[in-house]
Amino acid sequence: MAMVRLTEQIHFIKEIDKVKYIKRKTKLFHSDRHENDAEHSWHLALMAMVLAEHASTSIDLLKVIKMVLIHDIVEIDTGDIFLFDLDKQHSNTEEELKAAKRIFGKLPQKQALEFIYIWQEFEAGVSNEAKFAKALDRFQPVLQNLSNQGGTWTEYDVAYETILEKLAPILTGSETLWEYTEREIETSIREGTLKQ
Amino acid sequence: MAMVRLTEQIHFIKEIDKVKYIKRKTKLFHSDRHENDAEHSWHLALMAMVLAEHASTSIDLLKVIKMVLIHDIVEIDTGDIFLFDLDKQHSNTEEELKAAKRIFGKLPQKQALEFIYIWQEFEAGVSNEAKFAKALDRFQPVLQNLSNQGGTWTEYDVAYETILEKLAPILTGSETLWEYTEREIETSIREGTLKQ
Repeated sequence: MAMVRLTEQIHFIKEIDKVKYIKRKTKLFHSDRHENDAEHSWHLALMAMVLAEHASTSIDLLKVIKMVLIHDIVEIDTGDIFLFDLDKQHSNTEEELKAAKRIFGKLPQKQALEFIYIWQEFEAGVSNEAKFAKALDRFQPVLQNLSNQGGTWTEYDVAYETILEKLAPILTGSETLWEYTEREIETSIREGTLKQ
Repeated sequence: MAMVRLTEQIHFIKEIDKVKYIKRKTKLFHSDRHENDAEHSWHLALMAMVLAEHASTSIDLLKVIKMVLIHDIVEIDTGDIFLFDLDKQHSNTEEELKAAKRIFGKLPQKQALEFIYIWQEFEAGVSNEAKFAKALDRFQPVLQNLSNQGGTWTEYDVAYETILEKLAPILTGSETLWEYTEREIETSIREGTLKQ
């Protein structure tokens, strides 16, 4: 029985290798090299470990880490959707749910459901854990862009108001991370790296 | 106070971006593309989530995940050491400890110590969590090599006995993963992909 379950689980483990090929728009720190979804998810999990104390509410750290580790797996089927692509809906789409069911569906049935629920809880953004996980997901590209002379904000000429609006989930998850974000963006504007 | 701590933590978060540049000897599934340490660590964390039920003893999953997420960070300073490089010592070296102190030392003091302790517990390989984390760290390249006609085993002409000896930590952490490993390696030998 253990071997039957293990064989199914290994199918899943092989399938998610594809996450390493999904390129994001954002680039590594002080770099021209695009980040992939596996690297991004690893970095978010480390940030969850390091920054948990800054969450606005008490959180279950294990759940936050699980969320950020799996949140982009659906992109194996849907591809990366750029945060500032205003023509596309970014979450809770039928296409993403179909992808979640196909990919997590490789796991033994009860385990597949557990993974789908964690992913849906993240997408819904309502629980304390989802709020903090989403804050981290927005905060990491802020740090990357600030290190790359505005990064994707500059490259795609995103208006200051749009940046702040899209970064609002940071405030929802952590007042401290938001305070840092606002301060650093204002500094970049003052220094001329970012335009207002 | 929160902002002072956050600023230190962000120094650490930026520093570990370098993990994404550290290439391993092993390659992605059915691929010629080398894996990097961030991708590897992400994959191990997912494997911990999925395969926890196969650990030989009860484990604290959060601790296992923390271990695999951080276990290769020291390689920013030491570089990747190939498992089958028999001239090099593979763990508990002075060089690695120095790297751990430098890199984790960017965090606020108490947090830095916590991270160093987790890394040392992994390296020691004595606790239940470390045994299972080490089993996963050995098991992932088995799956990769099996998908790549022997992968690094064939490429570096590693003797069958050496492979089995180096994979022993899999048995220490999980009898089920070991049973699968032995069976798959024997199949590869029978089919001629691997030589005995």
